[in-house]
Amino acid sequence: MRIADRIGRLGTETAFAVGAEAAEFAARGNRVFPFHLGDLNIPSPNTVVEATIRAIRDGKTGYCPNAGIPELREAIAADVNSTHGTAYQASNVVAQPGGKPTIGKFLAAVMNPGDEVLYPNPGYPIYESQIEYLGGTAVPYGYVETEENFDLDFAAIERGLSEKTRVLIINDLHNPSGAELSPDQRGRLAQLVRDHDLYVLCDEAYFDIRYEGRSTSFVEEKGMAERTVLLYTFSKRFAMTGWRLGASVGPTEIVDVIAKLNVNDESCANHFIQYGAIAGLQHGHAEVQEMLEILRARRDVAAAGLKSIDGVRCVVPHATFYLFPNVTEVMQRKGLTDYESFRRAALEATGVSFTTRLHFGRATPGESNKYIRFAYSGIGTADIEEALGLFKRWCES
Amino acid sequence: MRIADRIGRLGTETAFAVGAEAAEFAARGNRVFPFHLGDLNIPSPNTVVEATIRAIRDGKTGYCPNAGIPELREAIAADVNSTHGTAYQASNVVAQPGGKPTIGKFLAAVMNPGDEVLYPNPGYPIYESQIEYLGGTAVPYGYVETEENFDLDFAAIERGLSEKTRVLIINDLHNPSGAELSPDQRGRLAQLVRDHDLYVLCDEAYFDIRYEGRSTSFVEEKGMAERTVLLYTFSKRFAMTGWRLGASVGPTEIVDVIAKLNVNDESCANHFIQYGAIAGLQHGHAEVQEMLEILRARRDVAAAGLKSIDGVRCVVPHATFYLFPNVTEVMQRKGLTDYESFRRAALEATGVSFTTRLHFGRATPGESNKYIRFAYSGIGTADIEEALGLFKRWCES
Repeated sequence: MRIADRIGRLGTETAFAVGAEAAEFAARGNRVFPFHLGDLNIPSPNTVVEATIRAIRDGKTGYCPNAGIPELREAIAADVNSTHGTAYQASNVVAQPGGKPTIGKFLAAVMNPGDEVLYPNPGYPIYESQIEYLGGTAVPYGYVETEENFDLDFAAIERGLSEKTRVLIINDLHNPSGAELSPDQRGRLAQLVRDHDLYVLCDEAYFDIRYEGRSTSFVEEKGMAERTVLLYTFSKRFAMTGWRLGASVGPTEIVDVIAKLNVNDESCANHFIQYGAIAGLQHGHAEVQEMLEILRARRDVAAAGLKSIDGVRCVVPHATFYLFPNVTEVMQRKGLTDYESFRRAALEATGVSFTTRLHFGRATPGESNKYIRFAYSGIGTADIEEALGLFKRWCES
Repeated sequence: MRIADRIGRLGTETAFAVGAEAAEFAARGNRVFPFHLGDLNIPSPNTVVEATIRAIRDGKTGYCPNAGIPELREAIAADVNSTHGTAYQASNVVAQPGGKPTIGKFLAAVMNPGDEVLYPNPGYPIYESQIEYLGGTAVPYGYVETEENFDLDFAAIERGLSEKTRVLIINDLHNPSGAELSPDQRGRLAQLVRDHDLYVLCDEAYFDIRYEGRSTSFVEEKGMAERTVLLYTFSKRFAMTGWRLGASVGPTEIVDVIAKLNVNDESCANHFIQYGAIAGLQHGHAEVQEMLEILRARRDVAAAGLKSIDGVRCVVPHATFYLFPNVTEVMQRKGLTDYESFRRAALEATGVSFTTRLHFGRATPGESNKYIRFAYSGIGTADIEEALGLFKRWCES
């Protein structure tokens, strides 16, 4: 078999292998505590379910426009405008089969081979994969752990800039660290984007998964809505990961190209689910709020459990459903200094399954702190408590 | 705005513009007879609808494996094996959000920039678009009209072959002409594929939309299953166009790459619809048969109507839901010798809306016969009869 050369540049989500290992461990008769999933074990809102079922029965089963039904595009524009202070119209919105399609399509629309793209690392691994697959150069920037939070490494972004930089990818709020940009950082980033004439992909998959305070979007900065495409998705906010519905939101010059990619790649997103999504936006708030309360309780239990472990530091973010504890000391103490050994030893000894920093991009030179990611979206509070008790005993032994 | 260079090579489905024009004509208070749609106005099978609704209520709403749920992959393998005499397993099947995604992903997996790809023209326009978008050279082959049918222009394929030919795209049964390969042609094509060490994309979207006889797949030829990826879709066969579910079926070396593209492009196809599709494969046959009876009746009325027009020749295929009448004489008689003038004049005069040969690829040099495409999937027999009466009067005047 002669596979095409471009496939050699294509990455993947190595976290799926962790899920497979956990399943195999469970199949051997062991109990698994699943902290590795970026998925939710919480039902999708009834509002969405019932509206979708009505749409199926109403025969919304034929093709719909490539960019989505006008009513959904309007509803998403209105939703974004209500929280972002923007003035998007339906024409700024192109529906997608999930949040993820926006990454590859945005890069295909604006990035030429040889262009450089600044992207978060650790971060969602598909950024790195799609940049390199499409022939770009992936230039990482990171976050610095403080007492309170993870803080954007602005100096790394400045160091990473070159004549060839064309795109900045922001994930705000950030998977895996839960970091969010400060008002000062948003302003400085916007200035840098203007100065270097960049385009921006702003992945806001976790914008509404928030327990305290209020999320503020990068596109509120002056001139940024004209240069930014938002990755918008129903997956996390409405516990609709397996439904596959999201959107690209941005200037028509770019989203029209993205719609043309829809024509070529998959015609359109599922038709009837778009009616369910509209119902969710209009009438699903109470159910979303209930989900957030469940997640907040899990966060508090998980953070308390992790913080109680000798040798673990754990920032507690206001948003996302991830914790990104620093386990450098524990790994040293246990003599398990490579990530995969540590992860596998923990799974074997305790059934606690998590991903590590390496599932979110290649480690950068000089990186000495060690982090693992606990997702609490797929496991209830009682199990979290039991799991972290076992994990604590193991870490401290 | 600086859009990436690759977008300059990206085509589209120009047929969507016809739909927009028809809608605009209708909005001016006119009656439209829609023959331009490749969509169905027939409900999706109740079996599929109810199983899908059960799956939603059962909470099949989280992510599923990138390649699809194992039960669906098994069911599709079994379905293909039952009609193709193949020995596919679940591992040969990767679920997709529709039939279309297989085109781009297959080409991305096996075609390098500069490679040549033989593809049908007239044909589904996405072949040409994706070949060129991904940097390949699109080399067209056509079909020759006979008294009985459209016949593969085998000589054009032989002429199109070069050292650089890497892929052959077959659409069997063929949109827009309804052509199908003869046993002899299948054998000769297989020999040519072996001799030139090609890969094959076999688009079987219309394999089961058949009124007489039995479809036979190209992969029944010796050695072809090892080199061919089948485009498999629920869209047409189960009247599920807007659901977006299909699959890539082929050798694991290629479909594993396609699954890795799924990881990067959209994670997975919708989860709960996969349960509906399994139910359709297992229990939907009677409903599919009813749909085929409806389509057969429409074909007969449409073909009779077209054949009755002075200056129109119309082959009547055993399959697909398209007719591809030769209107060369009518266009000459009316002095409307370019396709768009003829199409628009017919719409304005009669409300009959159809696509033309140009919506299925660039005309090839020396092409003198003129064809238009009538899709009868979205219009009932009474309307077909009325529409073709009006069209006949207009053509003959």
